[in-house]
Amino acid sequence: MLKFDEVQKHNSRESCWVVVHGNAYDVTEFLPDHPGGAGIILKYAGKDATEEYDPIHPPGTLEENLPKEKCLGPVDPSTIKKEEKVEKKQVVKDEGGVPPLSQCLNLYDFEVIAKRVLKPTAWAYYSSGADDEVTMRENTSAFGRIWFRPRILRDVSKVDFSTSLLGQKSTLPVYITATALGKLGHPDGEKNLTVAAGKEGVIQMIPTLASCSFDEIVAAKTHDAQVQFMQLYVNSNRAITENIIAKAEKAGIKGLFVTVDAPQLGRREKDMRMKFDDVGSDMQNQNKDNVDRSQGAARAISSFIDPSLSWDDLTWLRSVTKMPIVLKGVQTWEDAVRAAELGLSGVVLSNHGGRQLDFARSGIEVLGEVVEALKAKGLFPNPMFQIFVDGGIRRASDVLKAVAMGATAVGIGRPFLYAYSAYGSDGVVHALQLLKAEMEMNMRLLGAPTLKDVVPEMVDARALGTHVNFTPVSHGHQIYEKLQTAVGMPGEPANKL
Amino acid sequence: MLKFDEVQKHNSRESCWVVVHGNAYDVTEFLPDHPGGAGIILKYAGKDATEEYDPIHPPGTLEENLPKEKCLGPVDPSTIKKEEKVEKKQVVKDEGGVPPLSQCLNLYDFEVIAKRVLKPTAWAYYSSGADDEVTMRENTSAFGRIWFRPRILRDVSKVDFSTSLLGQKSTLPVYITATALGKLGHPDGEKNLTVAAGKEGVIQMIPTLASCSFDEIVAAKTHDAQVQFMQLYVNSNRAITENIIAKAEKAGIKGLFVTVDAPQLGRREKDMRMKFDDVGSDMQNQNKDNVDRSQGAARAISSFIDPSLSWDDLTWLRSVTKMPIVLKGVQTWEDAVRAAELGLSGVVLSNHGGRQLDFARSGIEVLGEVVEALKAKGLFPNPMFQIFVDGGIRRASDVLKAVAMGATAVGIGRPFLYAYSAYGSDGVVHALQLLKAEMEMNMRLLGAPTLKDVVPEMVDARALGTHVNFTPVSHGHQIYEKLQTAVGMPGEPANKL
Amino acid sequence: MLKFDEVQKHNSRESCWVVVHGNAYDVTEFLPDHPGGAGIILKYAGKDATEEYDPIHPPGTLEENLPKEKCLGPVDPSTIKKEEKVEKKQVVKDEGGVPPLSQCLNLYDFEVIAKRVLKPTAWAYYSSGADDEVTMRENTSAFGRIWFRPRILRDVSKVDFSTSLLGQKSTLPVYITATALGKLGHPDGEKNLTVAAGKEGVIQMIPTLASCSFDEIVAAKTHDAQVQFMQLYVNSNRAITENIIAKAEKAGIKGLFVTVDAPQLGRREKDMRMKFDDVGSDMQNQNKDNVDRSQGAARAISSFIDPSLSWDDLTWLRSVTKMPIVLKGVQTWEDAVRAAELGLSGVVLSNHGGRQLDFARSGIEVLGEVVEALKAKGLFPNPMFQIFVDGGIRRASDVLKAVAMGATAVGIGRPFLYAYSAYGSDGVVHALQLLKAEMEMNMRLLGAPTLKDVVPEMVDARALGTHVNFTPVSHGHQIYEKLQTAVGMPGEPANKL
Amino acid sequence: MLKFDEVQKHNSRESCWVVVHGNAYDVTEFLPDHPGGAGIILKYAGKDATEEYDPIHPPGTLEENLPKEKCLGPVDPSTIKKEEKVEKKQVVKDEGGVPPLSQCLNLYDFEVIAKRVLKPTAWAYYSSGADDEVTMRENTSAFGRIWFRPRILRDVSKVDFSTSLLGQKSTLPVYITATALGKLGHPDGEKNLTVAAGKEGVIQMIPTLASCSFDEIVAAKTHDAQVQFMQLYVNSNRAITENIIAKAEKAGIKGLFVTVDAPQLGRREKDMRMKFDDVGSDMQNQNKDNVDRSQGAARAISSFIDPSLSWDDLTWLRSVTKMPIVLKGVQTWEDAVRAAELGLSGVVLSNHGGRQLDFARSGIEVLGEVVEALKAKGLFPNPMFQIFVDGGIRRASDVLKAVAMGATAVGIGRPFLYAYSAYGSDGVVHALQLLKAEMEMNMRLLGAPTLKDVVPEMVDARALGTHVNFTPVSHGHQIYEKLQTAVGMPGEPANKL
Repeated sequence: MLKFDEVQKHNSRESCWVVVHGNAYDVTEFLPDHPGGAGIILKYAGKDATEEYDPIHPPGTLEENLPKEKCLGPVDPSTIKKEEKVEKKQVVKDEGGVPPLSQCLNLYDFEVIAKRVLKPTAWAYYSSGADDEVTMRENTSAFGRIWFRPRILRDVSKVDFSTSLLGQKSTLPVYITATALGKLGHPDGEKNLTVAAGKEGVIQMIPTLASCSFDEIVAAKTHDAQVQFMQLYVNSNRAITENIIAKAEKAGIKGLFVTVDAPQLGRREKDMRMKFDDVGSDMQNQNKDNVDRSQGAARAISSFIDPSLSWDDLTWLRSVTKMPIVLKGVQTWEDAVRAAELGLSGVVLSNHGGRQLDFARSGIEVLGEVVEALKAKGLFPNPMFQIFVDGGIRRASDVLKAVAMGATAVGIGRPFLYAYSAYGSDGVVHALQLLKAEMEMNMRLLGAPTLKDVVPEMVDARALGTHVNFTPVSHGHQIYEKLQTAVGMPGEPANKL
Repeated sequence: MLKFDEVQKHNSRESCWVVVHGNAYDVTEFLPDHPGGAGIILKYAGKDATEEYDPIHPPGTLEENLPKEKCLGPVDPSTIKKEEKVEKKQVVKDEGGVPPLSQCLNLYDFEVIAKRVLKPTAWAYYSSGADDEVTMRENTSAFGRIWFRPRILRDVSKVDFSTSLLGQKSTLPVYITATALGKLGHPDGEKNLTVAAGKEGVIQMIPTLASCSFDEIVAAKTHDAQVQFMQLYVNSNRAITENIIAKAEKAGIKGLFVTVDAPQLGRREKDMRMKFDDVGSDMQNQNKDNVDRSQGAARAISSFIDPSLSWDDLTWLRSVTKMPIVLKGVQTWEDAVRAAELGLSGVVLSNHGGRQLDFARSGIEVLGEVVEALKAKGLFPNPMFQIFVDGGIRRASDVLKAVAMGATAVGIGRPFLYAYSAYGSDGVVHALQLLKAEMEMNMRLLGAPTLKDVVPEMVDARALGTHVNFTPVSHGHQIYEKLQTAVGMPGEPANKL
Repeated sequence: MLKFDEVQKHNSRESCWVVVHGNAYDVTEFLPDHPGGAGIILKYAGKDATEEYDPIHPPGTLEENLPKEKCLGPVDPSTIKKEEKVEKKQVVKDEGGVPPLSQCLNLYDFEVIAKRVLKPTAWAYYSSGADDEVTMRENTSAFGRIWFRPRILRDVSKVDFSTSLLGQKSTLPVYITATALGKLGHPDGEKNLTVAAGKEGVIQMIPTLASCSFDEIVAAKTHDAQVQFMQLYVNSNRAITENIIAKAEKAGIKGLFVTVDAPQLGRREKDMRMKFDDVGSDMQNQNKDNVDRSQGAARAISSFIDPSLSWDDLTWLRSVTKMPIVLKGVQTWEDAVRAAELGLSGVVLSNHGGRQLDFARSGIEVLGEVVEALKAKGLFPNPMFQIFVDGGIRRASDVLKAVAMGATAVGIGRPFLYAYSAYGSDGVVHALQLLKAEMEMNMRLLGAPTLKDVVPEMVDARALGTHVNFTPVSHGHQIYEKLQTAVGMPGEPANKL
Repeated sequence: MLKFDEVQKHNSRESCWVVVHGNAYDVTEFLPDHPGGAGIILKYAGKDATEEYDPIHPPGTLEENLPKEKCLGPVDPSTIKKEEKVEKKQVVKDEGGVPPLSQCLNLYDFEVIAKRVLKPTAWAYYSSGADDEVTMRENTSAFGRIWFRPRILRDVSKVDFSTSLLGQKSTLPVYITATALGKLGHPDGEKNLTVAAGKEGVIQMIPTLASCSFDEIVAAKTHDAQVQFMQLYVNSNRAITENIIAKAEKAGIKGLFVTVDAPQLGRREKDMRMKFDDVGSDMQNQNKDNVDRSQGAARAISSFIDPSLSWDDLTWLRSVTKMPIVLKGVQTWEDAVRAAELGLSGVVLSNHGGRQLDFARSGIEVLGEVVEALKAKGLFPNPMFQIFVDGGIRRASDVLKAVAMGATAVGIGRPFLYAYSAYGSDGVVHALQLLKAEMEMNMRLLGAPTLKDVVPEMVDARALGTHVNFTPVSHGHQIYEKLQTAVGMPGEPANKL
């Protein structure tokens, strides 16, 4: 059995060993292919990396990506010294700061609490958006430009908001959308979502980049009839993708959501700034390394998300599965119409939660032009082609606005992550119950006993395209200096306003 | 006579007695039917609840809702120990902080002062709106999108702003609209409004959910000819409603305003958060209880506001009264036209002060489309069908904007509550005098000696539907983090803007 | 000769004497007619009121308003004790805080400095607007919605911005408009403006409500050819007005600007709040007195501004003068067209600096519709009917925007008051020089060597009517509470955002 | 050899000598012609001015502007006392405050850092804009009103953003535009830009008003094939301009950008306020001097920028060079069309970085009307007439918006100044690399593998002309006081909101 002092010798780019879950691995040759860059591995060269490794890699990652001979076998535990941890500028999870779950009255509450309990790096990863985060904020803002036209004196003693997504029942016109790295927020990761979805009768979409393995997430279902969808990044190596699809189909997954808005993963600067907390002291090297890493990330990503994926590939994709296929990340009527004409099962109008292209429009805004174009071509309404929307949804009123405009259901992501980060699956259950309570209330007040009664005339969305309400700001506006005057205002220093 | 230590034994869900005004009541069976939930009663199980009970229940509530045999009779006062009050985190009414009434120059002033003098729970109840309170703020904002086109060189030496509502004289095109739980602000509750309305010659609308009893409010009139209207929630038990109507008719009420925007009472989160100040220490139970209560509230409300009320019920309603009937809470031209075609006496364009459906449009915005549609159908102007508006009115200029656009009068609610919370009925009198002074001034400056001269051409309301001025913000915007930079701005810590 | 202790006995409403400039006056019967209310005089009953009297009354006021017998003659100075001054919460003029004049780079600078040096009451009077001051701020904001379309490659080596107003030469398309109570800011009052106007070759409009007498202002001219205009409030007593006009004509006044937007003087709450610093201790009385005063003010004003003034009176007005007559305060195209059709000499599109009707539109916005309507009727351009604009002008770019849209010249008021409050007439000279420097620069950059070259195509004013940029806020928005969350944001107390 | 005490005697307007780089000069007769005014030279009369002189004058300035006889020859160094420096309120360059270059993630970061490291006077000069700086901020804001319409499922494995400007290759559709006084930020001045441009394969435009001499900048090229453009202010003395052009042509300059938006240099008040830190104690004189200087500046500028330059002069200009001629500072479609019809090589749609006419529209907004007008006349697309845009560009997304709307390339100025102020040429290299990384990412996410694929349909620019998003504020809004109420809000003093 290996001794740890042997491992410690392999602590450089030339020979790099790491210990994960008690086994040593030789990752020297893998360094240039690591999607997160070589630098982050080198920090743990010759060390035990288990704690950092776990939340960002689903079980089996090492086994799948390294040739067998690179696993050097178990390290004798008695030889492992208590590793001097690289000191981190991170607060510990502050359990005392979490209010009782009953005090969470809406989905925004979970966000405020999550910011308290999450490690700064996790918060940065979950909460960040692309560039100036204009699109991320616009996603919520856009709903603020849609107003209701409620009807009166209708019998709303019974309210029913159940619906059907790709032929599968859901208690709400809401599904839990796919988000990556679920263990950053909670040790049970995505399984929290599975359990809550099962209990509350909604559908979870399993992410390709989950922290938990696909098998774990499927196994966490609360009952056999629980429905799950699958989100898919198409790999440059099509065989890998075919494997994933076959496995999903076998596990009873009921819908395949192919991500089409991420040929390259977006730059999220808030997330990137966090990483500087980990830099060593050799600024000169760090500097060079950064430039490399930045270029390397783009290259590296190419190795598992295929940037050449195009409409032509859909023929292949449809040949390898019987699951309904939905394009996730459609952002124009032109592409939505093409998807409908190809006979796909639907589209998700989405900008990836504002994490990819900044100044992409919100899904709810795109919904307006998509429904109009589909109607003009006689393709709407069509029960075999459903429209979904995600991004910025925080209230049942947001859900109802999307439904009124033609969406079958909406996806919600971050709020559920925030909910389980603070409260585990109970938090997600509570979040879903809050949405249901709001749905019941709002449908009564709209005069709509069922979702069919939520019609276009119930919303005034004329201002949706104006982008003028709830204005987001960019870096340019935050850093702008105030104007000066000849003297200061009372209480302020001269020459400053 | 009962001894208090006997009462104290009945302190659980299984057997729950409470003392109110010296009498003991067995409310065990009533618990699940309490509109406010069982939890709030259980806090006083086996105790004297008089102080908490009074401001939220009009006299006679217990008698009307409990079977006679549940009144267990008087408790021997000598056996009642000074009850250890549940400690409350509430400031006492700060009389010293109230400026002389003459310093209140406009209706906004009362709001600032009321916030100082009201108990936090009362402030939360009065001031809160639904969800993100966007509609509540939009109600005021909407008036900010209407501008004047004043005319010059007209003889305005005499200005007359008296008018007639449902055939009843009013010194102002303003009435005091119905609001609930008046005693939270002042021990005389709604009677403050009655007295001031009488003195100043305006009409008060009596609420169904008043703290004072209907009889008390009618009795508070300052003179026999004083006119009152009645607001009505239609009960699932129609007999109760018929009783209320008969009683109103007998008391000389001149108009019946049927609330149609509240099949379920709205969630007001600011109000809900206040309640957490009262929670006990058993968080686990509290947690469960909250979920129950939330579901229970919806059910409970159904027991006294009928969510099945529909257009068909108007036939019955018109058969049981000769009072003019006005629908309160109309929010689209479609429903206003229907009301006019049915021969009702009018509509109140209202969103319930922003307390029901968030993102409902303001009454003043709806007024624009309603008048247009009525005109197109030859139903406007029509002296037998009057249009009222409420929500967000704070200035005589707001009143005149509504009149110019076609309203007969406007309802004002909260500002009068705030006025009497700080100054009793004198405050309301002063508020009405301020409005009159503003009316005289503004009509002179508009070049309009009478309300007939306040014509559509005097306002530019083209921007009303744009929702872009005076922008309200939602939770989503308040909690959004500022962007980061590589270093801080001068005077700020690094990495924070 | 009167002894002061005799004066001191007459210190009540029943018998009220005051001393001004060494003479005693019996004002008992005048009390109800005082435009500022009786209360303010009663504060000085039996006392020497000279210091308070001076800045608000032009010389001769007492003589003109009181019957001769009410002047009781001089008081023996040796009998006057050093009067215990009513203590005032006012800072003294802070000369040390005034930067050198050369540091004032634009007209805004004077405003910031004036706020420092003016007594709070004077600042409140000068700077206040009506109600929520929305119109006052909109006056500046409106210019922010007009953008330039500058032309290139034109010979701008020589730039000429001189023009002609009512046939009188001016070095700038700017005149100094009439404002009241000029001595509040500086002991020389309006004479500061006269001197500066003479030095810089611009025209001053003399106000009816000046602190200096008409004769003093005329006498302050720097040279005989200096041109002055006159602003006129038409008195209910037409004889008084005819006297004023005759005097003006005799003094060589070249234009008569009749104010038509002030049948009643506006409520300016900032100004009113200042007065509470002077209240005595008897709150109960104060309270009543306030209500009286408020009603009394309206009545009192009627005594010297005639609210019945109408179009018919123009026939009389034209019969008593040969001066060109301009209506000041026109706010719609309808009234502007009527003035043009009547053959008047022009209109000032103005809302009285935002001091009268709140939510009146800005003069620059009205200009758009006025020019369009006059053109449609073949009344524009017409050298015999000139259009002026005032309100919110602070930059030469504002002036040029008005000229491009069709104005002959613009009036500027407050900035010149602020300039002389801090620097006397030198300040006004400097302000005018700054405007000239900006004019030269901006006309060069616009590609316009003369004012004739400043054409409509040089501005994009399409957004002028939208009212959405540079949004003013109302009281309603300032006092609105932030939303609450389940916990506070980092660094903030829980439950508050 | 001159002794320094002889120099010191010539310290007045009557006889003014200064020492620069060890030589004494008699500048008495030159005083009135100094573009910066006489005052600034007089501060150094009889002194050594080298340190102040260097950053604002390119080498050779004295030699070119003074007759030979005015150079009085070297001063004996042993006679020069350590000059008592005029004390300056300036912080020294804070090297410790500069984060590692790798932490700069976007172009905004350089601005925040530059503010830290630059002397206040340099910061004021670089960062200031005209008047209220509305146009300066609008330049960035305007891009915020353009949103993307990204396309999906296109092969973006390879992304190419190279292009051609006036026939010259560039790795990016970005050039480094001309900005003045480069040595204020860094001792190597504009040469930093030359080196970085060479390394990264982009084109630098050499400014007429550079701190480095033309020859130095040309000599700094990293390789012979490196392309440079030249910016030109046309001098009233055409011979000087012809000399400059001939020299440029000989040095291989590939394009001549004639500035047409600056017949007079703009007033930048932030910059002007800085100068008051240098005033002496004689305020009275200073005051007068300021007025003089202000007038003098306009006159002085006329001596080297010709305000009479007009379209007619283009015939002469085209006769003296074979370089392609581009007009820099075009702001309307009318002028752009005229330039195209004259057969020029292009236009730069620019408002001089917001430093000339405030309320001029942004270049990107003007682009919309220019392309539309050129298309309507059959003049677009036309490879021989290219359209450039500058102003406010900070992100690759801004670049792509301009390209989609029809621009060939965009100019970026200040961000590169900020980059080298903190990091020398490495900073500029890093800035260009950041733009490239963003370009690659954004083009992938747009679904555009080459710049030809970046088509008009990929942007929604309908709101561009509304000027309502990202609202800039003016002085008027910053100094506006908050409204008052009868009492303060909790935690605030009474009477203040």
